[in-house]
Amino acid sequence: MFDFDELNEECGVFGIVGHSDAARLTYYGLHALQHRGQESAGIVTTNGEKFHVHRDMGLVTEVFSSDEVSKLIGSTAIGHVRYSTTGSSVLANVQPLVFNYAKGEIAIATNGNLVNGDKLRKELEANGSIFQTTTDTEAIAHLIARSNADTLEGAVKETLNQLVGAYALLILTNEQLFVAQDPHALRPLAIGKLGDSYVFSSETCAFDTIGATFIREIEPGELLVVTQDNEMCVTRFSEPKETSICSFEYIYFARPDSDISGINVHTARKRLGRQLAKEAFAEVDVITGVPDSSTSAAIGFAEATGIPYELGLIKNRYVGRTFIQPSQELREQGVKMKLSAVRKVVEGKRVVMVDDSIVRGTTSRRIVNLLREAGATEVHVRISSPPVKNPCFYGIDTANRDQLIASNHSVDEICKLINADSLAFLSAEGMIEAIGRPSNEKNRGHCVACFTGDYPTKLYDALEVEETV
Amino acid sequence: MFDFDELNEECGVFGIVGHSDAARLTYYGLHALQHRGQESAGIVTTNGEKFHVHRDMGLVTEVFSSDEVSKLIGSTAIGHVRYSTTGSSVLANVQPLVFNYAKGEIAIATNGNLVNGDKLRKELEANGSIFQTTTDTEAIAHLIARSNADTLEGAVKETLNQLVGAYALLILTNEQLFVAQDPHALRPLAIGKLGDSYVFSSETCAFDTIGATFIREIEPGELLVVTQDNEMCVTRFSEPKETSICSFEYIYFARPDSDISGINVHTARKRLGRQLAKEAFAEVDVITGVPDSSTSAAIGFAEATGIPYELGLIKNRYVGRTFIQPSQELREQGVKMKLSAVRKVVEGKRVVMVDDSIVRGTTSRRIVNLLREAGATEVHVRISSPPVKNPCFYGIDTANRDQLIASNHSVDEICKLINADSLAFLSAEGMIEAIGRPSNEKNRGHCVACFTGDYPTKLYDALEVEETV
Amino acid sequence: MFDFDELNEECGVFGIVGHSDAARLTYYGLHALQHRGQESAGIVTTNGEKFHVHRDMGLVTEVFSSDEVSKLIGSTAIGHVRYSTTGSSVLANVQPLVFNYAKGEIAIATNGNLVNGDKLRKELEANGSIFQTTTDTEAIAHLIARSNADTLEGAVKETLNQLVGAYALLILTNEQLFVAQDPHALRPLAIGKLGDSYVFSSETCAFDTIGATFIREIEPGELLVVTQDNEMCVTRFSEPKETSICSFEYIYFARPDSDISGINVHTARKRLGRQLAKEAFAEVDVITGVPDSSTSAAIGFAEATGIPYELGLIKNRYVGRTFIQPSQELREQGVKMKLSAVRKVVEGKRVVMVDDSIVRGTTSRRIVNLLREAGATEVHVRISSPPVKNPCFYGIDTANRDQLIASNHSVDEICKLINADSLAFLSAEGMIEAIGRPSNEKNRGHCVACFTGDYPTKLYDALEVEETV
Amino acid sequence: MFDFDELNEECGVFGIVGHSDAARLTYYGLHALQHRGQESAGIVTTNGEKFHVHRDMGLVTEVFSSDEVSKLIGSTAIGHVRYSTTGSSVLANVQPLVFNYAKGEIAIATNGNLVNGDKLRKELEANGSIFQTTTDTEAIAHLIARSNADTLEGAVKETLNQLVGAYALLILTNEQLFVAQDPHALRPLAIGKLGDSYVFSSETCAFDTIGATFIREIEPGELLVVTQDNEMCVTRFSEPKETSICSFEYIYFARPDSDISGINVHTARKRLGRQLAKEAFAEVDVITGVPDSSTSAAIGFAEATGIPYELGLIKNRYVGRTFIQPSQELREQGVKMKLSAVRKVVEGKRVVMVDDSIVRGTTSRRIVNLLREAGATEVHVRISSPPVKNPCFYGIDTANRDQLIASNHSVDEICKLINADSLAFLSAEGMIEAIGRPSNEKNRGHCVACFTGDYPTKLYDALEVEETV
Repeated sequence: MFDFDELNEECGVFGIVGHSDAARLTYYGLHALQHRGQESAGIVTTNGEKFHVHRDMGLVTEVFSSDEVSKLIGSTAIGHVRYSTTGSSVLANVQPLVFNYAKGEIAIATNGNLVNGDKLRKELEANGSIFQTTTDTEAIAHLIARSNADTLEGAVKETLNQLVGAYALLILTNEQLFVAQDPHALRPLAIGKLGDSYVFSSETCAFDTIGATFIREIEPGELLVVTQDNEMCVTRFSEPKETSICSFEYIYFARPDSDISGINVHTARKRLGRQLAKEAFAEVDVITGVPDSSTSAAIGFAEATGIPYELGLIKNRYVGRTFIQPSQELREQGVKMKLSAVRKVVEGKRVVMVDDSIVRGTTSRRIVNLLREAGATEVHVRISSPPVKNPCFYGIDTANRDQLIASNHSVDEICKLINADSLAFLSAEGMIEAIGRPSNEKNRGHCVACFTGDYPTKLYDALEVEETV
Repeated sequence: MFDFDELNEECGVFGIVGHSDAARLTYYGLHALQHRGQESAGIVTTNGEKFHVHRDMGLVTEVFSSDEVSKLIGSTAIGHVRYSTTGSSVLANVQPLVFNYAKGEIAIATNGNLVNGDKLRKELEANGSIFQTTTDTEAIAHLIARSNADTLEGAVKETLNQLVGAYALLILTNEQLFVAQDPHALRPLAIGKLGDSYVFSSETCAFDTIGATFIREIEPGELLVVTQDNEMCVTRFSEPKETSICSFEYIYFARPDSDISGINVHTARKRLGRQLAKEAFAEVDVITGVPDSSTSAAIGFAEATGIPYELGLIKNRYVGRTFIQPSQELREQGVKMKLSAVRKVVEGKRVVMVDDSIVRGTTSRRIVNLLREAGATEVHVRISSPPVKNPCFYGIDTANRDQLIASNHSVDEICKLINADSLAFLSAEGMIEAIGRPSNEKNRGHCVACFTGDYPTKLYDALEVEETV
Repeated sequence: MFDFDELNEECGVFGIVGHSDAARLTYYGLHALQHRGQESAGIVTTNGEKFHVHRDMGLVTEVFSSDEVSKLIGSTAIGHVRYSTTGSSVLANVQPLVFNYAKGEIAIATNGNLVNGDKLRKELEANGSIFQTTTDTEAIAHLIARSNADTLEGAVKETLNQLVGAYALLILTNEQLFVAQDPHALRPLAIGKLGDSYVFSSETCAFDTIGATFIREIEPGELLVVTQDNEMCVTRFSEPKETSICSFEYIYFARPDSDISGINVHTARKRLGRQLAKEAFAEVDVITGVPDSSTSAAIGFAEATGIPYELGLIKNRYVGRTFIQPSQELREQGVKMKLSAVRKVVEGKRVVMVDDSIVRGTTSRRIVNLLREAGATEVHVRISSPPVKNPCFYGIDTANRDQLIASNHSVDEICKLINADSLAFLSAEGMIEAIGRPSNEKNRGHCVACFTGDYPTKLYDALEVEETV
Repeated sequence: MFDFDELNEECGVFGIVGHSDAARLTYYGLHALQHRGQESAGIVTTNGEKFHVHRDMGLVTEVFSSDEVSKLIGSTAIGHVRYSTTGSSVLANVQPLVFNYAKGEIAIATNGNLVNGDKLRKELEANGSIFQTTTDTEAIAHLIARSNADTLEGAVKETLNQLVGAYALLILTNEQLFVAQDPHALRPLAIGKLGDSYVFSSETCAFDTIGATFIREIEPGELLVVTQDNEMCVTRFSEPKETSICSFEYIYFARPDSDISGINVHTARKRLGRQLAKEAFAEVDVITGVPDSSTSAAIGFAEATGIPYELGLIKNRYVGRTFIQPSQELREQGVKMKLSAVRKVVEGKRVVMVDDSIVRGTTSRRIVNLLREAGATEVHVRISSPPVKNPCFYGIDTANRDQLIASNHSVDEICKLINADSLAFLSAEGMIEAIGRPSNEKNRGHCVACFTGDYPTKLYDALEVEETV
């Protein structure tokens, strides 16, 4: 079966080698990556002899008390935060996964999604493997354990070459930390240094938090092998293939203070907003953004047009799983869940509402209506990315094709469905230019499959589903 | 003794009358007011016969589970959130306070600080009163219980006339809700309606959250008496005195989507930033704000100057008491606590850093240094309010006069102390104009005592301290 | 109103003076007294300058973490555990209660119940007092604060002379610990020493737990004043009245390893069982007791008759508030809540079931039926105390007179109602002899009011209720 | 490596098939088995389509809230409680273990210990298996998944025949419940019925708790296959070998109200005490037992001698992991951890202290000293089992041979070491007779290896250790 929940799996990984405060720095690193996954968190440390593990459902601050971090002794650590999805939110899936095999202990933390995960799993199960989780990551452990290669490095390389899809990967043993990037570099993974210690993180913002210095990004197909005393051997398990950095990281997912390919995400978003203003100006009184991810684009749009940026929408920050959701009845009476419109700002005004993307369209419709109820006379929706017409199979939570509004409707139809006065999307070319990666590759080295349907890899599991459906 | 901790007490209050979902709506209301107090939260409800109470230390989402809200039966409710201070963070102080007296149960929630609280307490203790809290609010209950007035309304009026200072006050009994505003209207308190139900809130943002409509603000010296079936009797316990709305609510404290005196706070802050640009332009490459409270002013500054607003500083959002603070050692190694500078944005740039205020100066110095370490070539600090030279005695957490940097140093000296290339404050006149209250009163009806030393009331407790010191 | 819930209030108190581990020893002391109160627990310590307080609902081990005990600095401590009742199970009632009054801080922990508590409260409220709890104990604080006596010792004595009923009382200030026993000595309170430190406890079992040595019991009407350096001044606030030690402490309430008046409770219970065997022998195969309180009496009964004692009934030990109670449906299907009969032991046997008392009769009926369902051919019930015909107003949870089965039914009627083959109670004289207090006073110095209706004090509050009903 | 921690693993299992309240009844069943394992608890249910799982460290009441039990939908359930050991107290080890393999989901709960667990594990790892736990149970899952048998039943039988040691085993799939007993029947496992539902439990006390009826015990080498509609197919995977029921279940481990082989445990213990009195009478004033496990034997001893049984020792009941352990310093000052002696009972008396066993001797010495400190003039220790000279490899927490006092010392030496006036153990023959299993097999079908060294199976893992050491 094609398991859609697995597609939702966007995550963050963090690792540090040979530092006396490894667990604590990993805690701060994961905290900086919290936006990448709010379902669960975990840290595994090693003192060179054995692992110490703590993992649980919840935010980083909920999972780790000071006591628990103190128990994570050892100078090398890897950590993981996982996105909140409904289907497979079970404790067993919380990463880093930890296994024993013939050669000792091994822990794995990964960001991304395999497109042949189900296929690998079925093959392994047919050969007598048992699985305790429903994640791709467990298949990776089985492949390593079953490899006949002489060394662990050999086994890891053999395994990586069987994986297809997106994977920014940390593999910890009591002797070494392996760090790998898939041959398309679909998910970000950066290398930094803190004193003598190598640090690895899904986003550079974690380096700023802990005071580490950014070195470079890991290259597609690269495998780094770092020993406890911070000797790093740079090798490769595969030639790089067409670079395909996820464009949604810039558009929506990454933190604005992170850099990807040397480009600051906030700045890229402002440029997306400026480009959008150029492509789809609207004569209005006020520009507003959907917080938090669209704020930068909205400011860019405002700067480009000279129309003032105002706080027309505000987000209620509730964090954690303990917030009591309003009942359907209360929501119908007007209790707002996450967003409120600011009446004083939008009443009697023509508004451009900048958002980063439209996926199913239901949220956009709700926000447009919030603005209208607060007195906006016109609501013009401007989207700082092209229409999402195709599902992502590499780890971003979009949706099934049937649920993607742009997959089945024209821009005009969407405009009506979301109750806007006008609607415009950014062009794919405009987007790629605005982000501005200095590259000569196709799409300047971006994966834009969700916009164009042109996937950088074969889609094993998905194809099988379509065949059997 | 003059207890400085008591001065720190900024809070939020919320009340709703005669609604079948009173407790749950109060939960959402308090959640919207969470920024006003993160130490503790409490709700008291009545079904006309008896109180139901739940209070505890922590954020609203930490204090209230769905179960606990469900147990708060009754159609009228008041709630309170309290600021986090060190001295008196004890469970007994968590509001609303609840008492039994000769005529039944009474609950009190208050925002603001009395300047004769210690005086009243001493007088009461000398007459045999016992106190279970260290808050002003308990003195109010004693005064009501000891009043010889025939009716509770009479006792409340008699009591209010003995109070001096800031108090936006909700008093609940099983029959009525009393709502009062001090004669200077120092702290905000708004009246709204949700269907037939009257709603009261420290800020209007709570109305937007629950879908209520703003009616008006309570007037200075006014006392409203609302029965369970939402009949509201508007009366007065005192003639209004010189209106003295706290200017810091606009500058820093209130949520940007709230309106005070019909003026949206975000918009006022943008105007403060524009005025600041007018008064103290600087030739730079980038404008940035100290998140979150200075973002609006920084955008206003950028709009007025045409220099781009960028995300030069970012706040790590950790919420709740469970975050593990970095040790001194880790902080010295570069682990950031709350703010990081975004290297890619500021490196090699001349920066204007807009902040809302400087109190002790230590934070400003730290932020300037963050920007310099991230590569800013010049850091020009622009403050969207005048220098704070005097302590607040009405409930805002500033500090003791000795600790106020502007009380003892010139602007030039402060500039050096915080390591800035230049420093400018907004003028008091510019500030008052920019906020733009439509009023002919002195300072357009603002309290600006912390800037000018001109307090709207006599300072009983503080004077006594100075005399005895 | 006559508040029945207040009658249920059986509790335990513990205090220690001038010991470096005061809080921790109080924790162990309260743990030993846990059987006396499972609703809430609290400790107040003083270092001579200020109080440290921690109190909450729950068992001692639930309320106190190691961290929280560590924060309770200071060398003098008092603690309290409170019985679980439904009516007034609120956080505000958790003792020790702590107050500020004109002369500083004061904390009070008490075991027992006043019979003029409502009367005192009404008089205080009429004079403008406010109450934050629904306990008698708060009235004591008001009386002390309102006293005109020159010294605190004077105020305490003046106050104690206004109290009528049962009270074993600890009063802590930053300078002294006051320890008082009501003039009838209704509730136990023992004095011990641990090194140089005076220790006080409701039961001597707490002394064994912490390694302290028993000195003597406090005398009726006595007031001890202990300073932080363990100087103890023995004084008196009242002449002793007729000693009236609660006989239920021996029968049911105290721990079997405690001594009261120098008599070990387990040994007294065995003698009660022996006396019961003498008064009401039954020709059976097996003797069993209702665990845990009747085990000693059952063994005594077995020893006296030579019939073997067997484990015919077993108690499921679930502790704490987290146990999931079986639904009515499951209980009807046979899921046992607390007690199970052991089929192998009772099947085909004639059984004497020894129990300590019958209050409402419903429990006895259930247990008899458990034994019959497990195959007992005859069930003869033997009770190691006389019939309870009158409510207790001094702090034991019995019930309202209407609910006391022996108040309205003959022994024969009760026998039928509980479905026993025969039923016998111990005689009052037999009980008094068996306990064996070496005293010439009436009833050898026992309160036997619940059996005889002869109360040692006037019953102010109860009388008023009867008059108004 | 020979992992001693694994030997400590005494546990309890419970299962129920086709009952609408399966999870809740399993909760009560596990609660009744709580004494068999206090480290962790878990329940897996199936509704015929998929599993629902909840497992965590802690007591049953700590692990399961009402909410969590409600989420465990499905009419068939298995549950597990696990003993508290230090080495492998990790979440991953909490049973029932749950796996996915080629044919679907599978859950396993087991009581007992394999003596070839390490051997199996090494063989599996050598063939590429990965392990996520450190328990034997995971090896069982691997063997099933790797079996080439056509049916699951075939795979289970093939697997069981590879296991050597003690295992009372429940295996759940979405279609069936498998129940197996090792060919020696080392650990107890009983079959009951509740209405139409089959119920399985380590001890019969769980049947009494939920109102189920005992049917019979599962036979050695038997495999039961129960479908969701309660059809039970009785089959066998092995011929029964010499029955070897653990004698320690009678002596110490099982609950006194359980029956094993139709013999009530409390009654058996009383007979052990009577036999002990016959073999080793002592002229004393008082008989006392070490609570709780020795109480029955002590009463038996007292009955046989006519010397009164008294409560000379009392256990402080603290349950759960939250109890604050006294520091070494406090323990030296006399703070008792678990047991106190009752001075009033033993002072000036000659005491027989009956205990169930002596393992390392340290506890016995401490208890003898407690009695002496409380004033006992003579302490005669009587043990209701023979000296433990050999480690148990089948799941009881004894200790390594070096630590077993009786392995290296004569009875006289032990007597001196524990500071007793005299010491006697029950003879092996006397023990076997007193328990009274109606059997003609060797040792009447008991395993007495820990007393005699005559183990019923080959000791694979242990032998290897001895060889390599």
